[in-house]
Amino acid sequence: MTYQLDSEVQSPRDVRMRIRNNEMAGPTSGVAPGYLQANLVIVPQSVAWDFLLFCQRNPRPCPILEVLDIGSPEPRGTAPGADLRTDLARYRVFENGALVDEPADIRRWWREDLVAFLLGCSFSFEDAMLKAGLPLRHIEENRTVPMYRTSVACKPAGVFRGPLVVSMRPLTPMQAIRASEITARFPLAHGAPVHAGDPLAIGVADVMRPDYGDAVSIRPGEIPVFWACAVTPQAAIANARPPLAITHSPGRMFVTDLRADQDV
Amino acid sequence: MTYQLDSEVQSPRDVRMRIRNNEMAGPTSGVAPGYLQANLVIVPQSVAWDFLLFCQRNPRPCPILEVLDIGSPEPRGTAPGADLRTDLARYRVFENGALVDEPADIRRWWREDLVAFLLGCSFSFEDAMLKAGLPLRHIEENRTVPMYRTSVACKPAGVFRGPLVVSMRPLTPMQAIRASEITARFPLAHGAPVHAGDPLAIGVADVMRPDYGDAVSIRPGEIPVFWACAVTPQAAIANARPPLAITHSPGRMFVTDLRADQDV
Repeated sequence: MTYQLDSEVQSPRDVRMRIRNNEMAGPTSGVAPGYLQANLVIVPQSVAWDFLLFCQRNPRPCPILEVLDIGSPEPRGTAPGADLRTDLARYRVFENGALVDEPADIRRWWREDLVAFLLGCSFSFEDAMLKAGLPLRHIEENRTVPMYRTSVACKPAGVFRGPLVVSMRPLTPMQAIRASEITARFPLAHGAPVHAGDPLAIGVADVMRPDYGDAVSIRPGEIPVFWACAVTPQAAIANARPPLAITHSPGRMFVTDLRADQDV
Repeated sequence: MTYQLDSEVQSPRDVRMRIRNNEMAGPTSGVAPGYLQANLVIVPQSVAWDFLLFCQRNPRPCPILEVLDIGSPEPRGTAPGADLRTDLARYRVFENGALVDEPADIRRWWREDLVAFLLGCSFSFEDAMLKAGLPLRHIEENRTVPMYRTSVACKPAGVFRGPLVVSMRPLTPMQAIRASEITARFPLAHGAPVHAGDPLAIGVADVMRPDYGDAVSIRPGEIPVFWACAVTPQAAIANARPPLAITHSPGRMFVTDLRADQDV
């Protein structure tokens, strides 16, 4: 079967089936527009309580879309019938904090004591910003959004702790106000900005040297606007070095059945 | 020391200290206005994961303000320095689902495996409704708000399951719209209504015969408006009959340091 373009309307279910059947393998940005996409984090039951508490205490970077029953790969709340072991395009597997595998499915890694978490991602609010005519510099310049480790500490929970990681989009102050209005409507996709203006105030020494992703240009009259970012829980997991952790591969998210503008 | 009236401004910390010192014992409605009050639920670690998941899956009736570290009675996130064993006016203690004690403090019941949950309560949104000039019939008629077990099932989690329980306030359709706007701003206090109009649509056979609280009059031109209610988790706990569960006594909530209109 040939790869089908975005111009054809894709339901979340279609997308997941194509990924499951290895007919789609690329990033999911722009796929199944209007539906919430999710970051995947899977940890053993032994650290699941701590991780759930970490997310609950840090909802801006870690908005919880669903926590699955222990041992279950079916996200019944957000995508009934889906299978988190096969329905993402690529995964990363970490043992004691070290990357050990990047498979296209994780059936061989699955265990009955694993707990899967689906956390909101920024694609939904970026969609809404574009529709409102706001610029997204990293898309204009064909880069990955710049991300920074800040001096703001997350609230710790058990073995999980670490800095708030943020993404940055340059906007004029008026655009920043409009963007705040719009993104505040998406609390499950990180919500409103956490900071705008002076990067040093949140411990970012040089916005042109991001810790993750690529630098983008900031034009005269623009200020850097920062949103909480889902790399935050990944940094906390890297710190904690649990015996096993499985995540999505960057940019290859899980596509849920939830409408982006839906209440949960 | 004499009991001091509400006309004197009370900080949440003052209120908690007076309760701790047995200088205040009554309901906390109207106390420390502008601050979030909380329902208290304490369960053993053995069922804490299930209960946290139940709350996470049913955020309208069970909005989580804070989950404390295992064995800790200090709500560091919402009221640093407070002690949940002494800072509520009265408690209810259940063993295997049966009420066994109603003490004024729970120091003798405390164990190192207990996990405390603070869940949002409706006082905050009622404050905001009153300020907007909306009527609260149960206050006008000096009754407890009427509450109903609905035919809507909560999403289950482990041992916890049960019906959505709602509270009801009669309003004209226009007042209902205004009340929805206002209460939607308080997601940590149950948020916007879950239903308005026909009680039968949510399985309420007779609004004049509530399952909890008192009936209130509905005047010509008014419709019943229903909000998710924190009796919901209590009903789920009653179903699950955990070996031990401790809650606040009705109307005697925990007063947090969080502003009612604050983001979390």
